[in-house]
Amino acid sequence: MNRLFVIKIGGNVIDDENNLSKFLTKFAAIEGKQILIHGGGKIATKLGNKLGVESKYIDGRRITDTETIDLVTMVYGGLVNKKIVAQLQALHCNAIGLTGADANIIPATKRPITDEGIDFGFVGDVLPDQLKTNNLQLFLENKLTPVFAPLTHDGKGQILNTNADTIASVVAVALSSVYDVRLIYCFEKKGVLENMNDENSVIPLLTTDSYEQLKASNKLFDGILPKIDNAFAAIDSGVKEVLIGHADDIVQNTTQNTTGTLIKER
Amino acid sequence: MNRLFVIKIGGNVIDDENNLSKFLTKFAAIEGKQILIHGGGKIATKLGNKLGVESKYIDGRRITDTETIDLVTMVYGGLVNKKIVAQLQALHCNAIGLTGADANIIPATKRPITDEGIDFGFVGDVLPDQLKTNNLQLFLENKLTPVFAPLTHDGKGQILNTNADTIASVVAVALSSVYDVRLIYCFEKKGVLENMNDENSVIPLLTTDSYEQLKASNKLFDGILPKIDNAFAAIDSGVKEVLIGHADDIVQNTTQNTTGTLIKER
Repeated sequence: MNRLFVIKIGGNVIDDENNLSKFLTKFAAIEGKQILIHGGGKIATKLGNKLGVESKYIDGRRITDTETIDLVTMVYGGLVNKKIVAQLQALHCNAIGLTGADANIIPATKRPITDEGIDFGFVGDVLPDQLKTNNLQLFLENKLTPVFAPLTHDGKGQILNTNADTIASVVAVALSSVYDVRLIYCFEKKGVLENMNDENSVIPLLTTDSYEQLKASNKLFDGILPKIDNAFAAIDSGVKEVLIGHADDIVQNTTQNTTGTLIKER
Repeated sequence: MNRLFVIKIGGNVIDDENNLSKFLTKFAAIEGKQILIHGGGKIATKLGNKLGVESKYIDGRRITDTETIDLVTMVYGGLVNKKIVAQLQALHCNAIGLTGADANIIPATKRPITDEGIDFGFVGDVLPDQLKTNNLQLFLENKLTPVFAPLTHDGKGQILNTNADTIASVVAVALSSVYDVRLIYCFEKKGVLENMNDENSVIPLLTTDSYEQLKASNKLFDGILPKIDNAFAAIDSGVKEVLIGHADDIVQNTTQNTTGTLIKER
């Protein structure tokens, strides 16, 4: 099968123009097929502050009300997405900016009100079985590079806010029947660290077995555990490899000589 | 050749949610291949006011400075475009939202400073010879409906602001070698009126000859002349027909029984 890299970048790359442009230069140089998923970063919050749209949280989780969904549709789907597309075009990478609503690629459902009565608002839980991968494949096979904003839709006319990590994961899983997929999460460290105070203690390889041993040793810091659990969930669903690494190392992390943490079944 | 409808809607349709939703319901019902181009409407100006981004004009023409291009990229490329896409998806029209930067479809060049020293800022003049129609065709042949925001790019990483009428016209011209194109401009009247005070005085057909006669009679109001001149320019460049009509009549205006003004070579 052909290889495909599904690459997610977060706020730390997007919020700084120099970081972003440095990253995109590297991204455009990657050999083979790629999909980019970007998070939102702080731009939406900053713009929201100017507009008097308050960021609302319940139990640490953002609530997406009507004003907020309009705000993130503008910022993620418009400003951030189109700036990335225009910059990639300048680097001769034929990018096409998308949300999950475009070509109906990522249908989702509005998150139901929780048993505790919490209404998260316009938050979309992806319907993984309904992804329209045929259109994504069409783009990839025609040398287009999809760039996703973290937005989906409910099929009833409403745009929904969806976590970018989740979008990266469901897209990687959905395309794993057609491509050998390496899902790459770029974050602010070189990889999963054995000692969180030592940037050079990257664990180069995690398998189901070694992960269990490592968890038992209590060495990993708590924040990374959900990321690794999600990575194994993607692998259980067909993704060949997941890599957690630094945005600066993106080119190398698409080769065999990875600097980040490669996560495989075994 | 297959037929293609290239349809432009402006502010009067976009600024009112009911008008927009009424229009989109009709648009989705059109038989055959379609492309939609939307203008910006007043939303950008309203949001700009809230953000303290002033609308700047020289000689009645809007100046697009750095703040303004970010604003219109958000509003046109994000909010308006994605709302239209999500609504069309709900109507089972497989829409894909695009700017001219996406898939490099509409390259443009930043308008040079005029001889009088006027700098329009980030305004894009389309490079008609460089349109990437192969990707547009790819989408159309795969039953996708392109929805364009009035934005282009300079190929050097910069998004540019481009008049929606112009985008509709260059897209129609570029695709006229592959399809029988009817370019439809929706506006707030039923068509070109012989008597501007009588909504029922629509001129059903304009050809090069009848237009010359009509102009000589001084019956047409000045504002409509540039629209008609642009229509003939599109026809001279290969577009089969141009229609100027009301958004409410969009379905009928894709048939032989048009209610608007049909403009043809002869």
